[in-house]
Amino acid sequence: MSHPTLGIGMVGHAFMGRAHSQGWRSARSFFDPPLTPQLVALAGRDERAARDTADRFGWASVETDWRALIARDDIDLIDICTPGDTHAEIAIAALDAGKHVLCEKPLANSVAEAEAMAEAAERARARGVRSMVGFTYRRVPALALARRLVGEGRIGTVRHVRAQYLQDWLADPRTPMTWRLRKERAGSGALGDIGAHIVDLTQHLTGERLTGVSAALETFVKERPEPDGERTGIVTVDDAAAFFGRFTGGALATFEATRFATGRKNSLRIELNGSAGSLAFDLEDMNLLHFYDGSADSQVQGFGRIVVTEPDHPYVDAWWPPGHALGYEHAFAHQAADLLTAIARGSDPEPSFVDGLEVQRVLDAVERSAARSSTWTTVDIHS
Amino acid sequence: MSHPTLGIGMVGHAFMGRAHSQGWRSARSFFDPPLTPQLVALAGRDERAARDTADRFGWASVETDWRALIARDDIDLIDICTPGDTHAEIAIAALDAGKHVLCEKPLANSVAEAEAMAEAAERARARGVRSMVGFTYRRVPALALARRLVGEGRIGTVRHVRAQYLQDWLADPRTPMTWRLRKERAGSGALGDIGAHIVDLTQHLTGERLTGVSAALETFVKERPEPDGERTGIVTVDDAAAFFGRFTGGALATFEATRFATGRKNSLRIELNGSAGSLAFDLEDMNLLHFYDGSADSQVQGFGRIVVTEPDHPYVDAWWPPGHALGYEHAFAHQAADLLTAIARGSDPEPSFVDGLEVQRVLDAVERSAARSSTWTTVDIHS
Amino acid sequence: MSHPTLGIGMVGHAFMGRAHSQGWRSARSFFDPPLTPQLVALAGRDERAARDTADRFGWASVETDWRALIARDDIDLIDICTPGDTHAEIAIAALDAGKHVLCEKPLANSVAEAEAMAEAAERARARGVRSMVGFTYRRVPALALARRLVGEGRIGTVRHVRAQYLQDWLADPRTPMTWRLRKERAGSGALGDIGAHIVDLTQHLTGERLTGVSAALETFVKERPEPDGERTGIVTVDDAAAFFGRFTGGALATFEATRFATGRKNSLRIELNGSAGSLAFDLEDMNLLHFYDGSADSQVQGFGRIVVTEPDHPYVDAWWPPGHALGYEHAFAHQAADLLTAIARGSDPEPSFVDGLEVQRVLDAVERSAARSSTWTTVDIHS
Amino acid sequence: MSHPTLGIGMVGHAFMGRAHSQGWRSARSFFDPPLTPQLVALAGRDERAARDTADRFGWASVETDWRALIARDDIDLIDICTPGDTHAEIAIAALDAGKHVLCEKPLANSVAEAEAMAEAAERARARGVRSMVGFTYRRVPALALARRLVGEGRIGTVRHVRAQYLQDWLADPRTPMTWRLRKERAGSGALGDIGAHIVDLTQHLTGERLTGVSAALETFVKERPEPDGERTGIVTVDDAAAFFGRFTGGALATFEATRFATGRKNSLRIELNGSAGSLAFDLEDMNLLHFYDGSADSQVQGFGRIVVTEPDHPYVDAWWPPGHALGYEHAFAHQAADLLTAIARGSDPEPSFVDGLEVQRVLDAVERSAARSSTWTTVDIHS
Repeated sequence: MSHPTLGIGMVGHAFMGRAHSQGWRSARSFFDPPLTPQLVALAGRDERAARDTADRFGWASVETDWRALIARDDIDLIDICTPGDTHAEIAIAALDAGKHVLCEKPLANSVAEAEAMAEAAERARARGVRSMVGFTYRRVPALALARRLVGEGRIGTVRHVRAQYLQDWLADPRTPMTWRLRKERAGSGALGDIGAHIVDLTQHLTGERLTGVSAALETFVKERPEPDGERTGIVTVDDAAAFFGRFTGGALATFEATRFATGRKNSLRIELNGSAGSLAFDLEDMNLLHFYDGSADSQVQGFGRIVVTEPDHPYVDAWWPPGHALGYEHAFAHQAADLLTAIARGSDPEPSFVDGLEVQRVLDAVERSAARSSTWTTVDIHS
Repeated sequence: MSHPTLGIGMVGHAFMGRAHSQGWRSARSFFDPPLTPQLVALAGRDERAARDTADRFGWASVETDWRALIARDDIDLIDICTPGDTHAEIAIAALDAGKHVLCEKPLANSVAEAEAMAEAAERARARGVRSMVGFTYRRVPALALARRLVGEGRIGTVRHVRAQYLQDWLADPRTPMTWRLRKERAGSGALGDIGAHIVDLTQHLTGERLTGVSAALETFVKERPEPDGERTGIVTVDDAAAFFGRFTGGALATFEATRFATGRKNSLRIELNGSAGSLAFDLEDMNLLHFYDGSADSQVQGFGRIVVTEPDHPYVDAWWPPGHALGYEHAFAHQAADLLTAIARGSDPEPSFVDGLEVQRVLDAVERSAARSSTWTTVDIHS
Repeated sequence: MSHPTLGIGMVGHAFMGRAHSQGWRSARSFFDPPLTPQLVALAGRDERAARDTADRFGWASVETDWRALIARDDIDLIDICTPGDTHAEIAIAALDAGKHVLCEKPLANSVAEAEAMAEAAERARARGVRSMVGFTYRRVPALALARRLVGEGRIGTVRHVRAQYLQDWLADPRTPMTWRLRKERAGSGALGDIGAHIVDLTQHLTGERLTGVSAALETFVKERPEPDGERTGIVTVDDAAAFFGRFTGGALATFEATRFATGRKNSLRIELNGSAGSLAFDLEDMNLLHFYDGSADSQVQGFGRIVVTEPDHPYVDAWWPPGHALGYEHAFAHQAADLLTAIARGSDPEPSFVDGLEVQRVLDAVERSAARSSTWTTVDIHS
Repeated sequence: MSHPTLGIGMVGHAFMGRAHSQGWRSARSFFDPPLTPQLVALAGRDERAARDTADRFGWASVETDWRALIARDDIDLIDICTPGDTHAEIAIAALDAGKHVLCEKPLANSVAEAEAMAEAAERARARGVRSMVGFTYRRVPALALARRLVGEGRIGTVRHVRAQYLQDWLADPRTPMTWRLRKERAGSGALGDIGAHIVDLTQHLTGERLTGVSAALETFVKERPEPDGERTGIVTVDDAAAFFGRFTGGALATFEATRFATGRKNSLRIELNGSAGSLAFDLEDMNLLHFYDGSADSQVQGFGRIVVTEPDHPYVDAWWPPGHALGYEHAFAHQAADLLTAIARGSDPEPSFVDGLEVQRVLDAVERSAARSSTWTTVDIHS
């Protein structure tokens, strides 16, 4: 454990801040990254809340302005855990100052912002500065195994992609307003928050890009009580998005993202049907991957329920013995360990800001299609 | 068992002919319909094959021309089990001759044919002649229970309809041509064959109509070997269909029908998410219905796995004790029993030819949308 | 269909009588047995009820005494569907009269009766007369496939057998008395009724015999209301049985049979763990078999969910296309078709009366162990 | 976060040492225990390995003798993570020295040792010193919810307990010897290692004690290669245990613990059937609990699949939003938080050393029954 250290400065201290904190710490404990992360400082405008998170997770100091993090010499990497409308400014400033950046998803609230961020990342890269966007689910072991199996050709040519991200926390019309329901803060609703995950994941798993989409957006409950219980606020984002599209390799894909799927708490489901086999996953059973091997003996063919906790499964060896489940936040440790390794090796971590930009372009095409009677809309693919 | 009899004449003797034969027979054995079905005659152009089916199931005689069935006085009902391109001619002739008609789905290969059939059904109805289209899945007990629960308001206002019909029998490009892959015979591919089922079922379960759709069709394998193994034939129908739509009550719906979902043999999945609860079903586990009751005590809320084999579940009491599974063809007995009851009572059986026409109109809108860059296309709703 | 016929006489007309009737009829319709079964006569003491079943299923005549069936020349086979206390007398009389016999399970209510029956079967066999005991579940396609896979060595040496038959129809203490709860009629309770199935199935699937057992029996509710609602009756059979045992090949086995497993309607679960793989089955999902192939590539190992509806699965080809579920009574058609084939070929059908006797001996050892402080009790294995 | 601190000294640094380290740390980060745990020192005979674990998890110092931990004034609690044969000596010394103790399960390798430990705990308790045994699974949220539901009477009187702990890591005879297969180190095999968990859990969940058992033990592979690959070693513990028993409330219970269940990696399954409902759990899907509510409307009764990640579920509120899975080690954080709370409050933490002793007595009765032809053997219940 005599590895060199890397100073981390994190912006944000709520849900994502806690997940990232645990990720950095566990990366060090369970993996053996060539750089040891130091939790140098945490920035938050609410100093008291920031200090509470800092104390709980061992951040050495607290700042109330993210710019202070960038100014510090003992910080090498800025970890951005704030809402999407702040990502571009912070990330670009950090990269231009020579700090590595890990930025939560979605990369930005618009294509224009995301393009500027990708350009900043490209400039920084020339100077050896690394950037990564936090599509953490790529590093859930079952999904990393799925990617590996697709890459090995185990399902052949992909014909169908079926992706849903179903939650239900807005199904009750009495659930009050939050910043997530205001377009100016959140950019979009279910589409950008959870739809972004299934767009990124399906592009990642297939190794292909979406070429076009046809889409509909829906806001079921257009007005909600404000938290104060007296006024009501107008919901300016989508409650649900439905779209289909085509991938570069010819697959026909269906997508759905919603916060109104009563009874589905966090059900991110992906199924890929290929010419030689299929894969199916549901985040509500996140340690399982279902694989149909079309090359198996015909009388025993069936979807195999793989418990993805074996030593030869991605990331698993660092944790517990077979059959001991991993949970939601473990993927943040995988993300941290991989990023530290990439920085040490001087290689480009994935997903890149360009990957984040590609997702943004798909989301943009979805919104444009929905606004034009669902007409087929081409996704502008980054060269 | 001193009920009056009803003479049945069946056209067709293959897959559907066998399912209907078993249905008529089991209706009599397990239910107590007020009319006892008599298997009077079976018509088929291939006399030898027709006679084989007749012998196996107890049809008293065989005809080689369906017109002969209509001409017979001892036949009161014509049961049409032939491919879709023959439905209109047979059904209209039978209805006009005063025979009750049970017609397999899809009702027809085009909206125009279906309209003519619905008109014939309306004319016949005025004379007490009944007609029914064979969307048999409505009578799978789990789905009949689902309809009952929706009707009782147990899931509240429907917000999401999620329907897939996944098969894989064409996934292998070496699978040879059949009449089902030629537009002139089959009308369409996966869309009309299996997509029709999920359109009918979701309209039936919700008690609502689709108002518009946006759609894409895909033919993955455009040329296949002919059964003779020497020539190849051109596939002129869709291999897969993806579409979304909106229901009259405001629900956002997604649909997918495909014969390329490797590993999915007959997976008709429907999920309805409502303001008060949800329902989920998969035909591969056809005796189960999953119900999420949003009004339950919060700490025990979850999708309940209902084994739909209890005496108070639809149709079940006539069969076996609790926990004894029913299979695919049992719904044909339910269909036969309900039709016999409706005829005896002088009531209108469901699904009607108008229901079949409505499905046809949705399929037509799907095809038109797919031909127009997936642009949103209104479904012409029958008044 | 110019096969010779075989005249059937059936004793009993309730639950089992209906299942067997449908079985004989469907065997003829869907299979092509070398003997065509004729439903000649049905015997029942309640003539009116017998006539109702006869009318519904097409039995040509009715008798009120089973002896009349044996006396008839047009009857070649006696199908015994009555409670267990009548099996021995009827079966022995029939066999001695030269009639083939199909006898419902359990073969008898005691080892002594079962031995006498097995001897009668042996005597009859010398004259070409066949006998079979109705452990129908052996012919559920998923279990027949399981047997085939074990026979092919796909799971290696069996180490663990885990068998449960869980029902809940007695869980409510207010459920009234029936003949099934009186030892003099039923012989035993859950043990003989449903425990017998899992004993037979595990011996059949493994191809081995139980060599000894240690057991406990329990009667949770010792007194129940009589159906008249005024008196109460004493329950003289077990509500539940728990035992473990060892198989000839060294496997350690656990068994449980109960009518008090609240929420489990007809859950017959079997799992076999072998040196090379495992198999798991639950009758509540009777079209599925789960197979773990220990020889598969390690990173994709998992229990495969085989939908046992493919043409190369046992019995399935005669029915419907892939993915179309079979139900409870289909196995009765398989049983009938196999028995007809064995009679025509002059071969011995399985399960034999000796198989039935072996089950009886295990049940007897269970009862003896339970009566002797659960002490290990050897099963007397038939040579 | 101005809570007083509690100094922790941990003995052992392997699998359990890592799980406990993460547990202490996460307890502080996600819960708000009234005492803040300080990771003061870690003891291990292999200093280099101990230092590695210490560095990874933030233990401030390392000792090579556990006695040194007890001697330190800055250590208030000894956390014992070593094999079972060392538990008694360390725990008794620590308790007698006034240190609180958390001891991994099983409490000891024999009843005599466990009794001595329980006595030491009782002595220490009089001086305000607390002790707890690490049956961590009690604090998996789904199982904690199960306990709560049983306690609320939601399943009524328990009639059946069905418990299995299935692993497969010894199924291959080529798997080499380890200390876990030597009786002198491990005490017993599957019985003490994993059988202990299901004994404790079922006693905890029901709130009852086992009164007697009948049991069999089996060693399938009696000789294995030593890790050096040249010699072979004799396996002196059980590979599998099967037993049934009765609970104080009259329930009939079946148990199985094995390391030979090919394909089952860590499948701890518990089902409770009560007069009013049932509960089912499988550790391979550890975020789910299945609850059958017998009081529900009859037509929608079924096992509900509760995703145990809601704020009103035990422990969950401290972690992530609904639907975000917890993993294996989270229960160690719950254990740490509860123990810290109990110490601060001066209350007795559970499970106590007496609970651990009770488990030991059941395991002892199992071994005695197995040695006496499985004869029913009474469990000596602690007054």
